[in-house]
Formats: sequence, C-alpha cells, structure tokens
Amino acid sequence: MPGHKAPNETGELKDIGGKLRLFTDQALHPGARISPADAQLHYLLHVMRVRNGDRALLFNGRDGEWRCVLADVSRRGCVVVCEIQTRTQDSVADLWLAFAPIKKTPAEFLTQKATELGVAALIPVITERTVARRVNLERLRANAVEAAEQSERLSVPEIREPQMLPQFLESWLHSRRLLFCDEAGDAMTIADALANEGHHSSWGVLSGPEGGFSRAERQLIRSHPAVLPVTLGPRIMRADTAALAALAVWQAIRGDWH
Amino acid sequence: MPGHKAPNETGELKDIGGKLRLFTDQALHPGARISPADAQLHYLLHVMRVRNGDRALLFNGRDGEWRCVLADVSRRGCVVVCEIQTRTQDSVADLWLAFAPIKKTPAEFLTQKATELGVAALIPVITERTVARRVNLERLRANAVEAAEQSERLSVPEIREPQMLPQFLESWLHSRRLLFCDEAGDAMTIADALANEGHHSSWGVLSGPEGGFSRAERQLIRSHPAVLPVTLGPRIMRADTAALAALAVWQAIRGDWH
Repeated sequence: MPGHKAPNETGELKDIGGKLRLFTDQALHPGARISPADAQLHYLLHVMRVRNGDRALLFNGRDGEWRCVLADVSRRGCVVVCEIQTRTQDSVADLWLAFAPIKKTPAEFLTQKATELGVAALIPVITERTVARRVNLERLRANAVEAAEQSERLSVPEIREPQMLPQFLESWLHSRRLLFCDEAGDAMTIADALANEGHHSSWGVLSGPEGGFSRAERQLIRSHPAVLPVTLGPRIMRADTAALAALAVWQAIRGDWH
Repeated sequence: MPGHKAPNETGELKDIGGKLRLFTDQALHPGARISPADAQLHYLLHVMRVRNGDRALLFNGRDGEWRCVLADVSRRGCVVVCEIQTRTQDSVADLWLAFAPIKKTPAEFLTQKATELGVAALIPVITERTVARRVNLERLRANAVEAAEQSERLSVPEIREPQMLPQFLESWLHSRRLLFCDEAGDAMTIADALANEGHHSSWGVLSGPEGGFSRAERQLIRSHPAVLPVTLGPRIMRADTAALAALAVWQAIRGDWH
C-alpha cells in the first residue's frame, strides 16, 4: 500500500505518493461504497492520514481499476466510494509458480517478486529436503496483495494450499507445461526450450528446495509428460534466485513482455 | 560460507555441508599455506569447528579452485594448505550492473543475487531521486564474497566506487552496450533487443532508483550511443526486481546459460 508510481499523461513515471492503490474483495461499480479491510483502514487513517475527498484507486481482480473518493472519514473508519473506471480488467499470463517452501524472509521475498513478475498462482510443494514445512499462507497472501497494489496489477496471485510433491505431480494437467529448473546440467537451455514451445499457452515453473531435489524426485519429475527440464547455467543459485530467473526469462520470451 | 551444494560424480547435486568453499586474495599453488581472513577464521573455528585434516575448496579469481587441507588448527587460528587444483580458472561473462543504491536490505539482496547471476562488476550510480546516497561498499563486498563462495563461482564481482549519473555516462565506453530498463514503455522488448545485438560481447545493465529516473536523466541516458533502452513489460517492478530480471534474461539469451 505504500506510495507507488504510475505513468502520467506524458508516459513518464512519477511518484504519486499522495495517491493510494488498494485491493478489495468487494464488487466495484459506480457509487459502490467499499469498506477497507482492517490493515488498510489502519494504513489509510494512521499512516496516510486521509481526509474526506482524498482519492484512491481500487481493484478486485474482476472489475478493472476504479478511481474512488474517500468519505465518512473519522478516527475509527472511512468508506471508499467508486467514481469511474480507470482501467478495464486485463487477463494475466497463465503462469504458475510451484516452489519448495523456504525460510520466512526468502519466501516473502519470492512471493513479492513473483507477483511483480506476473504469476497467476503460487503453489508451495513439499519435497524430501524441504526444511521449512510450515507455510504461513496468510502472510504470503498479504505479501501478494501488497505487491499487486504497488505493481499496478489488476489481480492478486492465488496462494494455493501446500501439496506433497507426488500428489502435486499427479494432479498436474498434462496440457500445462511445467518448466523444471534442473540442476543436473544435461537439460536444454531455458531460452531454447521456450523458443521451441510456441504452441503452449498454460505454463508453470517448478523450483526446488535449498538442498535440491533427491535423485528419486528428479526421476519422478522428469517422467511427467508435461515437464520440460531446463538449465539455468553453470552457477549454483539459491532456490529463490532460480525461481525468479526462470519467471523473468519466461515473461521475456513467452509472456507479456514480448 | 555455509554448507553448499556441488555436483558429485554422477552429476546429481548433493549437499556437502561438511565441505567448505572459501575465497582468498592470496596466490594458490601446490603447498601454498593460506591464512584465512578474520571472519573466515571465526566461521571455520567456531561455527564449523574444523579439525586438522578437514578439507576445503579455495578460489581467488585467478588460479582456479583448489582442494585444500586444514592444518595447525588451534583455538585461535589455522592454516589452509593447497593440495591439488580441482578446476581451472574460467572467464566470467563480461556483464556489469549499474544500479541506483537502494535501502540496505534490498542492496545486499541485489548484490547476492547479481553475484549468483554471474555479473563481473557492480557500480552504484547516484541519481536525482536516489534516496540511499550512502553505500556501505565493505558490506556489499562481503555479500559478494559469500554469494560467490556458495554459487561455485571462481571469482568475486568487483564492487566499484559510487558515481554520479552524468560522470558515470561520460566515462562509459561506447563499445560496451548498456541495457537501460526504461519505464516509459516505448522501448523494444528486452528479448528482441538482445536477439538483434549478437555482435556485442561487453555489456552492462542500468537500473533506476525507487522513484524512477527524472525526465532529464532519461533523455541524458538515451542520448548515449552505447545505450539500448528496453522494456520489462506492463507491470511496475521494484528497482531490485527489474535489475535481476534484466540480468537473468541477458544470461538466458546472450550469456553463459546459452
């Protein structure tokens, strides 16, 4: 929710710290009166110290983005009233990230960056060597909302329930290509692999835990018909670096950067 | 310096937490006796609790990687004695990252990730809207050393002295292509731009501060003959996300991932 940047009429980005951009679950239409969530209320009243008549932008993942005006501001509450739609809803790239949960800070960081990189869903996958088996989904959802508000997205990525690797693979549709960041080094380069797969539109990225996948897990993953093993070069990358690198390259070659 | 992973003889990565990989400034040759730096000594003696005869891998950015044995271990010191060379020195991609300094945590994170992504040098560049004008170069150098030790690199990226943007551009050689992550959106996509520039071998990435470059700065940057403005898609990314995304895409299309 902090001050963010938006393109002005000349195309230059300028800081519009005075403007606010917020996600809501509620429906947006002319005159809709939206009650901010508790954390948003705190932010609006006590951090941004809004007044009646201040503006905000709202989005809910369905109805585009709306210019709103703040009303009924008191010490304990306010409402956000929809005026006009500023952007129509767009469709996000059909890209999911499946990742072995990592320590708290890298997991929050990964959620934030994956949101900025345009993923539609994040799926925690528990592997043999996954150390951090407890995942604070609520915390990750809050990270995703905040990153979506700041990155001008019109939707928040879905944070799914954690799955064990075998069940995750079993339920993975054959029609959704799964980029597997394979550390073994005998896989195709990610750029070549993506260039060869022009006809697929639904994608996922699977990245491993700190200690890598076990040999049995690698075999299981590579035997899935949807899996496309790729290499990310000669250096050893941390789990979160590898995941972000794969997402960035996917967006550059197959996604909406292209 | 923490436990890291290395390929074993079958190509699978396994955790070799018992092994150590360390950077040193000193020359490496058979029988060379290396004195660890203070922080390394603390780590070896009090965290890893090494004993005489324990193994370590050493690299210095010039002489490849060496298998070493620990000797003269006492409560206050030890030496690391070179045995045989395990890898010859490789050449790192000629890729630099110029970035507007950001807050402490993102700057340390960016240094770590850029090291994993194979940059040869990092250059802090002060811009009009740069908030964090003080850069702790020693801290960033320590981050780079640690990331190089863990990522199997044979060299540590150079952390240069900060420069003001105009001086930075003035001293930038015309022969070194400079990818400019331009937020204005009228630039070429990064994948197309990189695909068209096959003949260049020396590169840099320039990423802006939190509030973006000013209009005057954008004009100054775009007027430099080495600059190649590129777009990273429709979403607003944090400064560190944009820098890492550009580095990953460069490695995938032009660098050693390819």
